[in-house]
Amino acid sequence: MRYSRMFVPTVKEVPADAETISHKLMIRAGLCRKVASGTYTYLPLGWKCLLKIIAIVREEMNRAGAQEILVPSLQPLELWEKTGRSVDYGPTMFRLEDRHGKTSVLSPTAEEVVTNLAVGEINSYKQMPINVYQISAKFRDEFRPRFGPIRSREFIMKDAYSFDADAEGLGESYQAMYDAYCRIFKRCGINYVIVQAESGEMGGTGSHQFTVPCESGEDTIVYTEDNSYAANLERAAVDPAPRQKSDTEIPAPEEVHTPDAGSIDEVCAFLGTQSKDMIKTLIFSTGDKTIAALVRGDHELNPEKLTQVLGGEHAELAAEEVIKKVTGAKVGFAGPIGIADNVASMIVDHSVAAMASGVAGANKSDYHVRNVVPGRDFPLDGENVIVTDIRYAEEGDTYDGKKLLFKKGIEVGQVFKLGTKYSTKLGAKFLDEHGREQPCIMGCYGIGINRIFASAIELGNDDNGIIWPISIAPVEVIITSVNQDDENVARVAESIYQQLLQRGIDVMLDDRVLRGGAKFKDADLIGVPVRVTVGKRSLAENAVEIKLRRESESRRVSTDEAAQTTCELVASLKEELNA
Amino acid sequence: MRYSRMFVPTVKEVPADAETISHKLMIRAGLCRKVASGTYTYLPLGWKCLLKIIAIVREEMNRAGAQEILVPSLQPLELWEKTGRSVDYGPTMFRLEDRHGKTSVLSPTAEEVVTNLAVGEINSYKQMPINVYQISAKFRDEFRPRFGPIRSREFIMKDAYSFDADAEGLGESYQAMYDAYCRIFKRCGINYVIVQAESGEMGGTGSHQFTVPCESGEDTIVYTEDNSYAANLERAAVDPAPRQKSDTEIPAPEEVHTPDAGSIDEVCAFLGTQSKDMIKTLIFSTGDKTIAALVRGDHELNPEKLTQVLGGEHAELAAEEVIKKVTGAKVGFAGPIGIADNVASMIVDHSVAAMASGVAGANKSDYHVRNVVPGRDFPLDGENVIVTDIRYAEEGDTYDGKKLLFKKGIEVGQVFKLGTKYSTKLGAKFLDEHGREQPCIMGCYGIGINRIFASAIELGNDDNGIIWPISIAPVEVIITSVNQDDENVARVAESIYQQLLQRGIDVMLDDRVLRGGAKFKDADLIGVPVRVTVGKRSLAENAVEIKLRRESESRRVSTDEAAQTTCELVASLKEELNA
Repeated sequence: MRYSRMFVPTVKEVPADAETISHKLMIRAGLCRKVASGTYTYLPLGWKCLLKIIAIVREEMNRAGAQEILVPSLQPLELWEKTGRSVDYGPTMFRLEDRHGKTSVLSPTAEEVVTNLAVGEINSYKQMPINVYQISAKFRDEFRPRFGPIRSREFIMKDAYSFDADAEGLGESYQAMYDAYCRIFKRCGINYVIVQAESGEMGGTGSHQFTVPCESGEDTIVYTEDNSYAANLERAAVDPAPRQKSDTEIPAPEEVHTPDAGSIDEVCAFLGTQSKDMIKTLIFSTGDKTIAALVRGDHELNPEKLTQVLGGEHAELAAEEVIKKVTGAKVGFAGPIGIADNVASMIVDHSVAAMASGVAGANKSDYHVRNVVPGRDFPLDGENVIVTDIRYAEEGDTYDGKKLLFKKGIEVGQVFKLGTKYSTKLGAKFLDEHGREQPCIMGCYGIGINRIFASAIELGNDDNGIIWPISIAPVEVIITSVNQDDENVARVAESIYQQLLQRGIDVMLDDRVLRGGAKFKDADLIGVPVRVTVGKRSLAENAVEIKLRRESESRRVSTDEAAQTTCELVASLKEELNA
Repeated sequence: MRYSRMFVPTVKEVPADAETISHKLMIRAGLCRKVASGTYTYLPLGWKCLLKIIAIVREEMNRAGAQEILVPSLQPLELWEKTGRSVDYGPTMFRLEDRHGKTSVLSPTAEEVVTNLAVGEINSYKQMPINVYQISAKFRDEFRPRFGPIRSREFIMKDAYSFDADAEGLGESYQAMYDAYCRIFKRCGINYVIVQAESGEMGGTGSHQFTVPCESGEDTIVYTEDNSYAANLERAAVDPAPRQKSDTEIPAPEEVHTPDAGSIDEVCAFLGTQSKDMIKTLIFSTGDKTIAALVRGDHELNPEKLTQVLGGEHAELAAEEVIKKVTGAKVGFAGPIGIADNVASMIVDHSVAAMASGVAGANKSDYHVRNVVPGRDFPLDGENVIVTDIRYAEEGDTYDGKKLLFKKGIEVGQVFKLGTKYSTKLGAKFLDEHGREQPCIMGCYGIGINRIFASAIELGNDDNGIIWPISIAPVEVIITSVNQDDENVARVAESIYQQLLQRGIDVMLDDRVLRGGAKFKDADLIGVPVRVTVGKRSLAENAVEIKLRRESESRRVSTDEAAQTTCELVASLKEELNA
């Protein structure tokens, strides 16, 4: 690779629409360009990074016994309707009609198509375990694409799907992927943490998320200071709060007129109360059932936890007519008193159950109720009442008695024990050793290729640009000829270039006729791990300078030793990542 | 790779919906499965073939100085409107609306996005030549997907785009790609021919098509017996026919009443004439102009040739109102007499100009005209009259005095000199060495990865299955243990397997506990180039058998020499393709 012939459009200006450091640097270093909201073209050096990441992922997946396949991006909507995920994904899933009027979806993931493949092909326990994976474009119509490739509408995902005959088999398949993921992220040179996660819309019985802690992350890692517990925000559990006591006896509930005050803030302002003293009653629909969920006014309901309580069923905020029917009031005035009788179940967050008393909707338009005492004015037990944890954790909450801390991170991978959700709905069955028909037991395993790319830049950068881990750097070594128009300089630079090529080093010769300063700036911006500088001055002493991108000092070696020393440095940088 | 752990669902039955031999064999050999009309999942062995093809394409593109990038599949419709190709592609291009109501297209190719990239990044002649390519999924909403991966709705294409400062540069870029294509197809082991082609909707000034002759092909190769000329059907030129003479003087044109006979067949039946004696007058719209095109009744107008005559402009059959306005008659009765005065230009095929006389529409509803003499009753010269070649060649026509022959083929690649069509429309300009602004001069170069896959099977098969070229075979060598439950057999097979792995051979050990016949059938069906058979009987003489898939005889070698002989065979098979 000769720089003069490469298409590497570096830019000095910081792009106006880039919010994160990684997004800014990948534009500036000429690694990618925006095409439209949430879609990017990867330029030669950026795509080289992605190809290196893909190669590492492929190698480790193969080593773990997974088999690569390719599933189409255009997938029949019917399959997604069978599993109910056409509803769950909602507008996040791209849909399109073909010339014959048939609707396809653009694959956001591929459980449906892969499970449907198993329907035709896996018939016996003897055929399993099978683990198939693909590395391909996925599509999600994000409401607000942002942070460059971190939340984009088209991205490259490695998705694997395992099929086992029993839970033990799933356990082994899951562990093999878990271990492969650890190796992949290690080899890519990114520091990560593993947190417990909810499986959410994927369904299933267990999940871990691989997250790279960094400021630009959109995900929140919730952990205890002693690191005995770590989970993502969707999953993070909260201890039940102790029941609050009132010094005085709380009078009977009292209705107050709160005209048009339907939101927590409006009621608080109107009544002079605080949101933590409010009981928020939310009405959900799930399938053909209606459900009431109670959280404190200052808390936010966690839909993933609610889904878990509902045994994996997706719940949506109920439509206006349903709310009117159940509460007898317009939207904004639902309350807990008497509501349990009108819904399939009432799910009460621990924090609500712990309140001495609170203000709640009156199930009557424009009215709220004061002095509502949980357990006295509405039940905390009974056939259709569940008291449990359904809210998002907040910093300062405790779990297992320990304070929960928050930090930001980028999710780069997640593994799921799916169980039989998909195989049951799509009919992927096999005959077990006793000749009985059973649904396949599945797992699925995703890695965001572009997110590894972005994470590495988030973790490795300074004021001058990117500092790549050598395993995924666009080039391992750059030879910077400071005086390209000097014949001797050009000759020595070329000679070292050829030697490094012969030794299999991924090397770029910066043969542009430019002043040294500009070349150094580009090399630093692009983030090449090793730079060999060939200049008139040092050549006069028969020497060149070698500098690691991450260090500030360079070392001087004789021209004869340049190639050898460079190779050793490259090898030792690689060694660090494989250790 | 151990067969017992691989997902290779071979099937005995010939799939009912597969028409071509390649499609049948890829289903039977467990290489792919249909997902929906025109979309396929590639299973582990099929995808391995495609990855090998991709690796060869990538290597040769890089060697030719092209740089790999990745462009999104979701592309803004606006760009396609700017070049007019949203119209040209019509319903073949998938469109979809996102949640914000913006329309995107699913990339059928990427001239627009890549040219638009150049708009921002290429400013000076010094930056060129630049040639960027990608290997990615492309989408086309084929009216009738067929032949498996040959005409599918989602496929993998390698598409490259070159940018040059002048025609000479384009010539060099084009030649580099042309040469790289020859190497690619050679290395993939497929026999191909290169034919002259039209650039059609791509626009541009020159094109060659790389086509694999075979019965299942959808493309027609037109060639002269001495091979001095070969072109695809869209391009194939036809000699002008000599002017036919009439022995008697032809009387003046005579109108005949032909009620409701608007088609050639209807008129022929009604008047008892032959289609070769009819003059077909077709009215086209192009931009804001209306055009008349005349071909003989038994000939078919070639829209690609018409586009060339129109300087690259796309022409569509005119709407009913336009036809009425121009001819004064309902659709089906357009004729040449007087029409030249009502259209921007009249384009007359050579064969029409050569007619002594013919029957034509009368430009009057339900009337035709007999005794129409070209040159007498309508002009063959004049400002807006062009006599040229605008019909499809037919077998038996001549070109350059030589008879044209036809054969079927699969188009696997095409190269185009685009010129400035896209750079002008999208504004990709640069400053030349004199500081003048010029549009970039472009070329584009496509290869159908899945078509190489299908072509190789079309060319290499027998009654037992596929016969792969070794370079793209799913595995190079299969070790078939005929008696896997015999300890000695299993041990020797495993030993040879390990030796071959160590020597870098892509080998699969068929360790299934199955009878030998079934294993041989699978190995032949899958088409593994080299089979090493380890069985009790030959092992008694300390020997194994080695057989090439393409040969009927096997050779016996001692177990000690098995690995070495196998490696030599693999090397010599590879050598053939690189020679």
